[in-house]
Amino acid sequence: MSHSAPIPCAIGIDFGGTSIKPALVQGAHILQHGDPINPQGHTAAESLAAMESAIRSLCTGLPGLVPVGIGLPGFVDSLHGIVHGLSNVPGWDEVPVSAILSERLKVPVILENDANAMAYGEWLYGAAANTRNAICVTLGTGVGGGLILEGQLYRGSQLAAGEIGHTSIDYRGISGPYGNLGCLEAYVGNHQISTRALTAYAAAGKSAPSAECTPKDLHDAALSGCAVATGIWEAVGTELGAAFANIVWLLNPDVIVVGGGVAKAAEVLFPHIERSLKSRTSPVMNRHLRIVPATLGNDAGAIGCAALALNART
Amino acid sequence: MSHSAPIPCAIGIDFGGTSIKPALVQGAHILQHGDPINPQGHTAAESLAAMESAIRSLCTGLPGLVPVGIGLPGFVDSLHGIVHGLSNVPGWDEVPVSAILSERLKVPVILENDANAMAYGEWLYGAAANTRNAICVTLGTGVGGGLILEGQLYRGSQLAAGEIGHTSIDYRGISGPYGNLGCLEAYVGNHQISTRALTAYAAAGKSAPSAECTPKDLHDAALSGCAVATGIWEAVGTELGAAFANIVWLLNPDVIVVGGGVAKAAEVLFPHIERSLKSRTSPVMNRHLRIVPATLGNDAGAIGCAALALNART
Repeated sequence: MSHSAPIPCAIGIDFGGTSIKPALVQGAHILQHGDPINPQGHTAAESLAAMESAIRSLCTGLPGLVPVGIGLPGFVDSLHGIVHGLSNVPGWDEVPVSAILSERLKVPVILENDANAMAYGEWLYGAAANTRNAICVTLGTGVGGGLILEGQLYRGSQLAAGEIGHTSIDYRGISGPYGNLGCLEAYVGNHQISTRALTAYAAAGKSAPSAECTPKDLHDAALSGCAVATGIWEAVGTELGAAFANIVWLLNPDVIVVGGGVAKAAEVLFPHIERSLKSRTSPVMNRHLRIVPATLGNDAGAIGCAALALNART
Repeated sequence: MSHSAPIPCAIGIDFGGTSIKPALVQGAHILQHGDPINPQGHTAAESLAAMESAIRSLCTGLPGLVPVGIGLPGFVDSLHGIVHGLSNVPGWDEVPVSAILSERLKVPVILENDANAMAYGEWLYGAAANTRNAICVTLGTGVGGGLILEGQLYRGSQLAAGEIGHTSIDYRGISGPYGNLGCLEAYVGNHQISTRALTAYAAAGKSAPSAECTPKDLHDAALSGCAVATGIWEAVGTELGAAFANIVWLLNPDVIVVGGGVAKAAEVLFPHIERSLKSRTSPVMNRHLRIVPATLGNDAGAIGCAALALNART
């Protein structure tokens, strides 16, 4: 007769540019969402106080406070729990978040880059479960990535690995941030997809589905048989497949998980990714490889962070 | 008072397309080279018998036979010790080399892809010593690579990782093997460098340094101030820097070790690699990164294999 231990809980916090979303997490499940906090227009100290309060509130019904994991969009020292700076939130330069919150809460508080947190969540409980080597890519305004190699989150020597959006598909191509030519994000980021589509509609003498021509609009247009929209997804899939092929030659993974807003266009996008990738890799490499949509959606980051917090040594 | 244990010996065998080179290895040192064996025109069984004899001969002065590591150019199942096939040596399809030789010799016999073996040697005792994350690239007729990640040889899910020569620098570029467009090897492989140089000399109305226009010839020409040769190295360095930038964004390593014949042109090539790489990566990524020539030369493979053999569980 055996008693299985109860699955431990942790707080997972998905720190976004316009909303900090705390949640009480148990394994793959979000038990309760806390009230979101807007970091814009507030100092880091104010947001940290609001986060402390939200954490205490989410733990009200528990025997005590539980470990906390926070996924942040920016350059984060996950080893020492320090935020070096956030992409779209001013005032977070060199903030020792783990030290501040763990001092107040007396529980472990860990930080992680948001793309890494999502990758870890998808690997542990989502689309990459039961694999050894998984690449997770998020397609949105930016293109992020996280790597699980040999069953471990791989962070690299300066904790800055996994920047798939900054890898290049054309060494003489379009310039991205940091001046790197052919930067993937400069081709398949949300805004770039919209801009390219608007240009293509104008060139074809057709009216675009909307003034913004968002990926969602282009998805619907492609499903309605619009050749311009289909052409855009074909180009984006070709480019993503080329970037993924480089990862495959280098890392020979089991699976590439694709998440984020653009990935919602899976039915019009994935066949082109797969065609492009297959034409650029060897059978040994691509025979067992799966390209799959993320399954945890917006919860992946909080779930991954909570799991990382429970793994942390106190 | 402490007695340090003697450094154990192992046999390292560098299996090349025209020469199988066995050696008795102790740590970073080759104690004795065995007679090379030509695999061409012989069956696998004949070559294996010659290897067995060479191994026994190299161990003559030792108390007994020692573990054996073999680095091979091709697709190798290092987990089960099976050669699936070799790049330029016919007759080696699905040969269980480890089982055959360890049955005869009663010592562990391990196999490894040659680029991985070289990477492991350079990481343990050469240019990448004392690093956690090292990328090793060999430039020659082909462009090979091996990855040491978090202090472990990273092989990937089908043991096929590290194929840097097949990553692409231009998704609409020159076609390589497997049909992948922009394949690095199709730009910077030995033959491609020579062909490009001959074309450049013809276009400039100048005579090439030799009919073959080898990388060695182009190195000497560049040192003599030849603008055509300098231009070739600038282009090759730009292309290598672009391929390395993709690796850096993805893996954020400590060091990239460059070995093989073309790397001997370090003084005319490395500054261009570094310029290209720096212009394509962020300061966080490139501030601590070193690009260094391999230091173990032709011995890296045998040294790496011998070390892997000593690590093997019996």
